[in-house]
Amino acid sequence: MTTRSSRATPAEPDTRTEHTFGASLDAASFKELFRGHPGGVAVITAEGESGPVALTATSVASVSADPPLLIFSLSGSSSATPTLASAETVVVHLLDEHDLDLAQLCATSGADRFGGAQPWTRLVTGEPVFGDVRAWVRCAIVSRMQAGDSTVLAAHALQSDIGRPTGQDEGPGALVYHNRTWHRLGPHSVHNA
Amino acid sequence: MTTRSSRATPAEPDTRTEHTFGASLDAASFKELFRGHPGGVAVITAEGESGPVALTATSVASVSADPPLLIFSLSGSSSATPTLASAETVVVHLLDEHDLDLAQLCATSGADRFGGAQPWTRLVTGEPVFGDVRAWVRCAIVSRMQAGDSTVLAAHALQSDIGRPTGQDEGPGALVYHNRTWHRLGPHSVHNA
Repeated sequence: MTTRSSRATPAEPDTRTEHTFGASLDAASFKELFRGHPGGVAVITAEGESGPVALTATSVASVSADPPLLIFSLSGSSSATPTLASAETVVVHLLDEHDLDLAQLCATSGADRFGGAQPWTRLVTGEPVFGDVRAWVRCAIVSRMQAGDSTVLAAHALQSDIGRPTGQDEGPGALVYHNRTWHRLGPHSVHNA
Repeated sequence: MTTRSSRATPAEPDTRTEHTFGASLDAASFKELFRGHPGGVAVITAEGESGPVALTATSVASVSADPPLLIFSLSGSSSATPTLASAETVVVHLLDEHDLDLAQLCATSGADRFGGAQPWTRLVTGEPVFGDVRAWVRCAIVSRMQAGDSTVLAAHALQSDIGRPTGQDEGPGALVYHNRTWHRLGPHSVHNA
């Protein structure tokens, strides 16, 4: 589309070409969009000055195998975030269907994660670790990035323990959170395209 | 635990308390660990100087609804990464079970993503967008963080389109990648704890 000037003088340069993004997506639409996007379920723990902290996260993803790096994000609204975001090391527990109680405990605001409802201990390096989970990996935080009120962390995997193998037809199924519902994967959920 | 000195002179300060992480996890163990961690499936596109690019990612996660922010990571080994990592805007397609062909196309090294096997067009803002997907969201990249050879991006959601609702009993199921297998969620996969 062009505009014409009714005056004979040369047109001024158009100074309105700076890139503008327009309005951003409103929070309700964004939440609706991502409610439909499933995520694996993890519980992340660290030792803070006031004791151990834990939260449930669906943002854990591997980003590189060599070096072994993973990422996750921490919501600014979680009381565990300041401790996790400033920790040198954390333990990321990767959960399966048998770990649903732990996932729910650490997703419940105000619940006492270390009160004994779920067995836990400390690694020799000091980090709290929940027992009997599908797998856990102890990591050193290597980078931090702010994103709004949230913090995105990159972590270097140091040590892991696999309690139960996954992907076996007979074994426990993976745990997935989707549309405010917990799901379990297994032979029953394979996509036979 | 305490140690005793057999000498009468004061003990030297212990200079060995500097934190050491020990060996990191080997790549094979790390891959085994994360094969068992499921992820939702997305295809990310951008317009580059040499044309449109696309890749399949299982690392997309929402990090904040207000402002509406999401993150994802790009492997250094993907040919689309330089274009996506330097783009000002991208389109993140959030897929369901009907989008499996698109997910597979954009996960296949060397495949021609824009050759016509999957219908696509351009938004008025120029970004390539695949048709008939569960949902897409156009985003502006707001932060970048290097993690090994990978790049982690934070993106601000600008505009979205939901083609199909999810989480309805009658509707299409969500698409999940786990242990080198595609899964679909639905009433059949709900975890009845």
